[in-house]
Amino acid sequence: MYTIALDAMGGDNAPQAVVEGAKLAVAEFDDITVRLYGPEEVLRPLVDGCERVEIVHAPDVIGMHDSPMLAVRQKTESSMVKAVMAVREGEADAVVSAGSTGALLAGGMLRIGRIRGVERPALAPVIPGRKKPFLLIDCGANVDCQARYLQQFGLMGSVYMQSVLGVERPEVGLANIGAEAEKGDRLAREAYELMSRQTAYVFKGNAEVRDVPSGDFDVVVADGFVGNVILKTIEGVTGLIMSMLKDGMRSSRRAKMGALMLRTPLREMKNRMDYKSHGGAPLLGVNGAVVKAHGSSDARAIKNAVRQARSMLEGCVVEKIRDGLEGLSMEK
Amino acid sequence: MYTIALDAMGGDNAPQAVVEGAKLAVAEFDDITVRLYGPEEVLRPLVDGCERVEIVHAPDVIGMHDSPMLAVRQKTESSMVKAVMAVREGEADAVVSAGSTGALLAGGMLRIGRIRGVERPALAPVIPGRKKPFLLIDCGANVDCQARYLQQFGLMGSVYMQSVLGVERPEVGLANIGAEAEKGDRLAREAYELMSRQTAYVFKGNAEVRDVPSGDFDVVVADGFVGNVILKTIEGVTGLIMSMLKDGMRSSRRAKMGALMLRTPLREMKNRMDYKSHGGAPLLGVNGAVVKAHGSSDARAIKNAVRQARSMLEGCVVEKIRDGLEGLSMEK
Repeated sequence: MYTIALDAMGGDNAPQAVVEGAKLAVAEFDDITVRLYGPEEVLRPLVDGCERVEIVHAPDVIGMHDSPMLAVRQKTESSMVKAVMAVREGEADAVVSAGSTGALLAGGMLRIGRIRGVERPALAPVIPGRKKPFLLIDCGANVDCQARYLQQFGLMGSVYMQSVLGVERPEVGLANIGAEAEKGDRLAREAYELMSRQTAYVFKGNAEVRDVPSGDFDVVVADGFVGNVILKTIEGVTGLIMSMLKDGMRSSRRAKMGALMLRTPLREMKNRMDYKSHGGAPLLGVNGAVVKAHGSSDARAIKNAVRQARSMLEGCVVEKIRDGLEGLSMEK
Repeated sequence: MYTIALDAMGGDNAPQAVVEGAKLAVAEFDDITVRLYGPEEVLRPLVDGCERVEIVHAPDVIGMHDSPMLAVRQKTESSMVKAVMAVREGEADAVVSAGSTGALLAGGMLRIGRIRGVERPALAPVIPGRKKPFLLIDCGANVDCQARYLQQFGLMGSVYMQSVLGVERPEVGLANIGAEAEKGDRLAREAYELMSRQTAYVFKGNAEVRDVPSGDFDVVVADGFVGNVILKTIEGVTGLIMSMLKDGMRSSRRAKMGALMLRTPLREMKNRMDYKSHGGAPLLGVNGAVVKAHGSSDARAIKNAVRQARSMLEGCVVEKIRDGLEGLSMEK
């Protein structure tokens, strides 16, 4: 039985969507208990006696405008900090939050701490690609990375894809502006060198950014600044094209009818692109399963993020990262 | 009368499309002469005595696999190097090439040279946005930038948008992963500081990458690595969505009919997204008008790139960058 701590007050649709998500999760998996953190008087009526959904009173909330570091240090009675602390104290096996990314990162790093040997934990969403989904690591936990952090990101991403998504031999690429080894900025060239030298995971060379969405790689490694730029550009361009498409479909009677006839494939396409609803982004490298659900998560997305946390526990991601890192450092 | 040197052998569709583009350009503008560089025996039959289209014999060609630096130094009889040298020697006012980007950058920097005071020339394509097009500078000429290069990119981009695209007060943003001044990696934070301090152009703060495609800024400044990542991600995602859309439209009889009814708005959308056909990317900061046309340019794209070179001359871009830089350095 896994216990998953859930920050009931995190995200745009909290607490309703979060509580609904918790209920969906326990209905789907009979080996989990979800422990909701938030003001008891708010949560009690919503939970309504649902089995395996527990409430832990946390009167305070971390807002989107709170300074992450300060909030984690000072708001010790907040739903997020208490949920994070539950993992540290061994009261829960994993923590899921749709609240402030910065605060969850800070909480994960400061309160739960790193796996022994990990230089920097990293945020790593799974993104839909043309052929298959890929893990983009790091997406913003660390700006100003060093090459050896990136070498480790490759390992952590590889472990995740193998243990959680069942990819047998994950192929790892380094996000870069060209295919050749000598391409890129200093960091990319150094990381290429280090990643080529190790044998703890399968390094397939540079992932040309233009080809990243095609899904040729299972894991794409980047400095947190660059990874975040890739993620945000994907979001921005997708939004732009979708809104242009919508405009075009309203431009005439004929177009409107055409749009109606294309409803099914367009809906499928939209669902496929909408990676936010597929679950959250794991924070890899911390000493526990931490999942950041998207701020706009609805109940289904929360349920998926809880499922993801459960898969990380079942797949022993933390233990495998620890073991893998030993292999990595031996080869250096 | 402007003389524009055109590398007749550069690009996937050379020399036919380039020669056709030259003819279209002189037909549209009666104040230009286009000087084509390439093997005379190849070009002569194609040009066919067209007025204001001249041929300068250049027997050699720089291929896409040539090392840019070596090619520029050694292939002095190549169409690209001879076209670039024509600007240096004052035989032409501008140079346009759809050939190797690296070689054109190297040629521009080594052979034509920088405008006095420019730290690093930068490649700056204009990209379609939701509200308006924006200039993304630098898109790959310089990896490992320093903050003061980025400060200058803002000026060069601002001058271009004002002089060539007629934007009265171009608003300049710094590509970043958050809106607040303290966001980003070290380079972004330092650049923010420097850009805030100057008054030679209008700095509007951080351009959150997610919002870049919406076109809130006229100029988006980035390190060449990050700018190239943004550009390539835009290309990759656009390609992905377009191919998913195509698949969806073929998925059933009904969908096929719907697609037929949407043909006009979809074609308009595709044209709007296809920035490559709108012209080329200027190399700003070198002592002459240098335009990199896209490798896949057809005759119309070549014509547009020539038009762009002409607009840069008419707008006195080089002179205005020189003057603007003086203002910039006085304020530091």
